[in-house]
Amino acid sequence: MSIVNVNVAGGSYAIHIAPNVLKQVATSIPEDASSIVLISNKTIMPLYGDVVKQSLSVTAKPLHILELPDGEAFKTLETLNTIYTFLLSQRVDRKAVIVALGGGVIGDMCGYAAASYMRGIRFIQVPTTLLAQVDSSVGGKTAVNHPLGKNMIGAFYQPIAVDIDVTVLKTLPAREISAGLAEVIKYGLILDAEFFAWCEENVAKLLALDAETISYAIHRSCELKAYVVGEDEKETGMRAILNLGHTFGHAIETALGYGKWLHGEAVGCGMVQAAELSAQVLGLPRSEVDRIRSLVEAIGCPTVAPNFGTDKWIELMQIDKKAEGGKIKFVLLPKIGEAVVRTVPSEDLGIALSRTVKA
Amino acid sequence: MSIVNVNVAGGSYAIHIAPNVLKQVATSIPEDASSIVLISNKTIMPLYGDVVKQSLSVTAKPLHILELPDGEAFKTLETLNTIYTFLLSQRVDRKAVIVALGGGVIGDMCGYAAASYMRGIRFIQVPTTLLAQVDSSVGGKTAVNHPLGKNMIGAFYQPIAVDIDVTVLKTLPAREISAGLAEVIKYGLILDAEFFAWCEENVAKLLALDAETISYAIHRSCELKAYVVGEDEKETGMRAILNLGHTFGHAIETALGYGKWLHGEAVGCGMVQAAELSAQVLGLPRSEVDRIRSLVEAIGCPTVAPNFGTDKWIELMQIDKKAEGGKIKFVLLPKIGEAVVRTVPSEDLGIALSRTVKA
Repeated sequence: MSIVNVNVAGGSYAIHIAPNVLKQVATSIPEDASSIVLISNKTIMPLYGDVVKQSLSVTAKPLHILELPDGEAFKTLETLNTIYTFLLSQRVDRKAVIVALGGGVIGDMCGYAAASYMRGIRFIQVPTTLLAQVDSSVGGKTAVNHPLGKNMIGAFYQPIAVDIDVTVLKTLPAREISAGLAEVIKYGLILDAEFFAWCEENVAKLLALDAETISYAIHRSCELKAYVVGEDEKETGMRAILNLGHTFGHAIETALGYGKWLHGEAVGCGMVQAAELSAQVLGLPRSEVDRIRSLVEAIGCPTVAPNFGTDKWIELMQIDKKAEGGKIKFVLLPKIGEAVVRTVPSEDLGIALSRTVKA
Repeated sequence: MSIVNVNVAGGSYAIHIAPNVLKQVATSIPEDASSIVLISNKTIMPLYGDVVKQSLSVTAKPLHILELPDGEAFKTLETLNTIYTFLLSQRVDRKAVIVALGGGVIGDMCGYAAASYMRGIRFIQVPTTLLAQVDSSVGGKTAVNHPLGKNMIGAFYQPIAVDIDVTVLKTLPAREISAGLAEVIKYGLILDAEFFAWCEENVAKLLALDAETISYAIHRSCELKAYVVGEDEKETGMRAILNLGHTFGHAIETALGYGKWLHGEAVGCGMVQAAELSAQVLGLPRSEVDRIRSLVEAIGCPTVAPNFGTDKWIELMQIDKKAEGGKIKFVLLPKIGEAVVRTVPSEDLGIALSRTVKA
């Protein structure tokens, strides 16, 4: 088993990465837990619910099980309220532990439910998508969406453990693997040029879900993210670089409606857009932009964005959480492996948009 | 002006207590605030909105104003969503500051909105009820109610400043003064026998809202609460003593429906019930129980609880956040000025209930 230790002000915990970790989830349950609440969705529960339930049964603690609908469209205050109502009607107390079994939607929403139920109870992430494994496992970002913006309601709240089972990726649709790999590449782009090159070399093995290769990609991604988050838990500075591609990506998701493009797909495309903007503003060489576009394409993500018109694009990006006083901040790449945060002249933004949206 | 400094892990801030502090709210706005969001309710806004708006205008920052309905019945996820929708539609960003002008409902709900909007923006408490001034000003407890329980959804989140204007108490209904004084007395009961005796001596002046007397009562209450919270921000230990009377009180509020009894009234009655239980379990002398009942009565709070039957009482108290594994924990008084947290035998609880509920 490979372990990444995460140390942040809000708490320290371990990420366990290995095949068949699902069978060992019980080892992450603290002895003083009064009960366990297993929350998943109707896609994942039938696939992995039994394995997790069996693992948890060895704790001999009361187990409450909640199955939610599946999809980003349900990452809402309404579903959150469903969770609260379940917890209260089951008399779940402050010493309980929530086990979130599922992708980013389940993780973000259960994390936020844990953060806000009785002002905070413990929770364990068991991410079952590649995106959630490399992204939501580290950083303590929990949230639900609002009709006017994605992830607008939430909290910074740390899990007590993250259990990553790489075997579950076998049942994941190919699109979701692509979406997850977009985030993997991102860590290389912003922090580690060698890791980006390693991804270029190993793209076939990654897509084939070779256990050793994918485990290393997850491990390195979590490590890099843990480094950034450890430096800046509340996203006041450095952490902003993790949003490479996200300002564009969130705009796409908001305009098309959540779930049309997967989050990772939108981020993949957004990274190509950020690369074009970096070329325009910081002189990132065209050859590097091409490497980025090629790898995003190779992992199977879109590299051409929808064309909403420049005004609508800017309006969509202004509502991003990273915007301040109406000014949009972008994560840009002076070179592969290094990132900066900048506002940009609107002419440059227009040019970069014109190069990356559908003709 | 009298100032209480609060230092907790989640942040440090100052409580300013003085007549006419409302005119100086602008001094609490940080220079880097991108905009100000003034939130109040339809009772308070007409009374004090203009004074605060005028104070804030000297900052020359954009000011967004939201008026909410008044009352505990509106301390819900729905109203919270009204706040989120307002903030998003006004393009309020992460650098904004919320000013919560009102009683405990406004303070708790706006505090929680601030805690959860974009995962946390800054807020300033301007409490306009005595209860909010002595209770919500310190401790960072923010929350909304759920139909199945009071304050079940929330966060620990600190304001950046608290501005307490004692002149606003003049427009407060007498019942609300009584309810606030119940919490004042509580601090004496759990921590400071001398302060309790001071309250006994000064009850007439307190009820008459003599400026100097009420300012001292607020100051001492905030100081005592700040001491407890500083020791235990997340309510894992000592802080529980602040819940004297609350286990009984919350049961009353839940059963009657929020707002029928004021929170402070329920706590006042609950303290008499806790005193009776203390006599039963810890041998608190009858003379002391009588002193407590007399002072609760003198400040104008009820001292006889509704009679729901013992089973229903226990059921109501089990859903309390302080309950663990179905066991109800009570804050009890070995003597006036000292508190302990205990589970109690149900026979003793039955006896104490029989002595404090309506015949």
